[in-house]
Amino acid sequence: MARTALVILNQPSLDAPAHTVGAPALQPVDPASAQLSVLDLAATRGDGVFETIGVVNGHARAVRAHLERFARSAAALDLPAPHAEAWLAATSAAIGSIDPTEEATAKLVLTRGVEGDGRPTGWVFAAPAPDHTVARTTGVRVVTLDRGYAYNANQTAPWLLIGAKTLSYAVNAAALREARRRDADDVIFVSSEGFLTEGPTSSLIVRVGDRLTTPQTGPSLDGTTQGDIFQWALQQGMRTGFDLIGVDDLLQADAAWLVSSGRHAAPIRQVNGTDLPVDSALTAGINSYLRERGDDA
Amino acid sequence: MARTALVILNQPSLDAPAHTVGAPALQPVDPASAQLSVLDLAATRGDGVFETIGVVNGHARAVRAHLERFARSAAALDLPAPHAEAWLAATSAAIGSIDPTEEATAKLVLTRGVEGDGRPTGWVFAAPAPDHTVARTTGVRVVTLDRGYAYNANQTAPWLLIGAKTLSYAVNAAALREARRRDADDVIFVSSEGFLTEGPTSSLIVRVGDRLTTPQTGPSLDGTTQGDIFQWALQQGMRTGFDLIGVDDLLQADAAWLVSSGRHAAPIRQVNGTDLPVDSALTAGINSYLRERGDDA
Repeated sequence: MARTALVILNQPSLDAPAHTVGAPALQPVDPASAQLSVLDLAATRGDGVFETIGVVNGHARAVRAHLERFARSAAALDLPAPHAEAWLAATSAAIGSIDPTEEATAKLVLTRGVEGDGRPTGWVFAAPAPDHTVARTTGVRVVTLDRGYAYNANQTAPWLLIGAKTLSYAVNAAALREARRRDADDVIFVSSEGFLTEGPTSSLIVRVGDRLTTPQTGPSLDGTTQGDIFQWALQQGMRTGFDLIGVDDLLQADAAWLVSSGRHAAPIRQVNGTDLPVDSALTAGINSYLRERGDDA
Repeated sequence: MARTALVILNQPSLDAPAHTVGAPALQPVDPASAQLSVLDLAATRGDGVFETIGVVNGHARAVRAHLERFARSAAALDLPAPHAEAWLAATSAAIGSIDPTEEATAKLVLTRGVEGDGRPTGWVFAAPAPDHTVARTTGVRVVTLDRGYAYNANQTAPWLLIGAKTLSYAVNAAALREARRRDADDVIFVSSEGFLTEGPTSSLIVRVGDRLTTPQTGPSLDGTTQGDIFQWALQQGMRTGFDLIGVDDLLQADAAWLVSSGRHAAPIRQVNGTDLPVDSALTAGINSYLRERGDDA
């Protein structure tokens, strides 16, 4: 056992050759050691896709939904389809190799591999999650930042890869640095028309009365966590929907959250310096549900 | 000597610690071996910057201009400033380690390093260039594709990193795949207003009469090759300028090129299926100049 664990897939896709014929079963390797060629297109072009799966008490959450989105992201980049069973096995092996911890994450990465080699690279990295208590209870301060794209650009320009979780996240990282410069914790991206879309690593949910809503704008990734929360909310007698949401709508909302697989629901307590109400009871209910929801691996 | 060579920098920036204190001088390592942690932010987020330098008969071209742009890209990403002398030495070592070849490229990469480690990763990879003869003489067929951004987005939204050569190139790669699907060789990106900006890995130059022009739109990288061509053109008695250029302007031009450090000037012979005149004499003049221009390393 170790604090973190790395498992490299020998054949991440059945549509491409294995790296080593007759390779032994999955064995965790040392995450601190070099495993990747500098010629891997992940490193030279951010050319690959990923998923981050939340792990609670050793159980990966919503694994099937993540693997389905992983496959959709791969298809958007014309990557060979990930072999679901191999990724499940690698994820289990990585999670099973780390010291028991209440919360962890498993990050799945599929890259185009070394240019011209024709063999994609795949790995799963499991690590304990940081302590998200403050974000989940006190909440986060966000700024809205222009993402530059029209809200329907995913339909008109598929080569922009909007909606795919790619490794090309330099803009997301730059936006988070800009948030810190503005004394905030996180970001909501805005379309060129002024519609809210998503956070750099999260989806947005807004509550008005007994209705939860999330942006219907194209640039949003379909959120696995957001989808699960909506299902739960319907069971609680709430209503759900997809809307075009502007900054003013958010400022007048009864509550709002940034939701993601690792941090779960973080209430938004401030938008561009203006306070937003935090719904502590509903936040606790959502996060309790996200912790306890089924292990579908 | 070898076909390709990889040199890893021990301390790519004086603003960050070295990887190994008292490390030996630059030594080429095996490019095929693993050198990079999968936790390097280059591989997980495309979080880094690069330059590709053209090498003719062992001499790197326009090295200072490339290193200056490298530093500007790093600053745009809040990366530690690259140490120019270390990068010069690594570039020379890499180029000097490959088998003599008429044309080669040296790719310089600076990444944020392993998350939380605080030490950027840097390497130079030298390799023989592919044969660009057809592109440089017969020319290339291009399609115009929407880049989704307003032409002045670099000024209004610096976190979009427009103008920085980042490792987050998945969109550029996807656009080139889209071009191949449309039976074309390359792409010119168009702003949301319809202004031409640049290619995924090149700058655009258009000739009308005795005047060469390049897009003044913000989203364009400042092109080192384009800048050198303009200097040469002025010496030839031509005029140069920066304009807002639409697709119709391109279709009515006397000639046009995609220019870059490795491929040099590739005449555009077709735009979205419509033929464009190829100016073979001027193309030959430009490419002869690009081959012969000073080695300023």
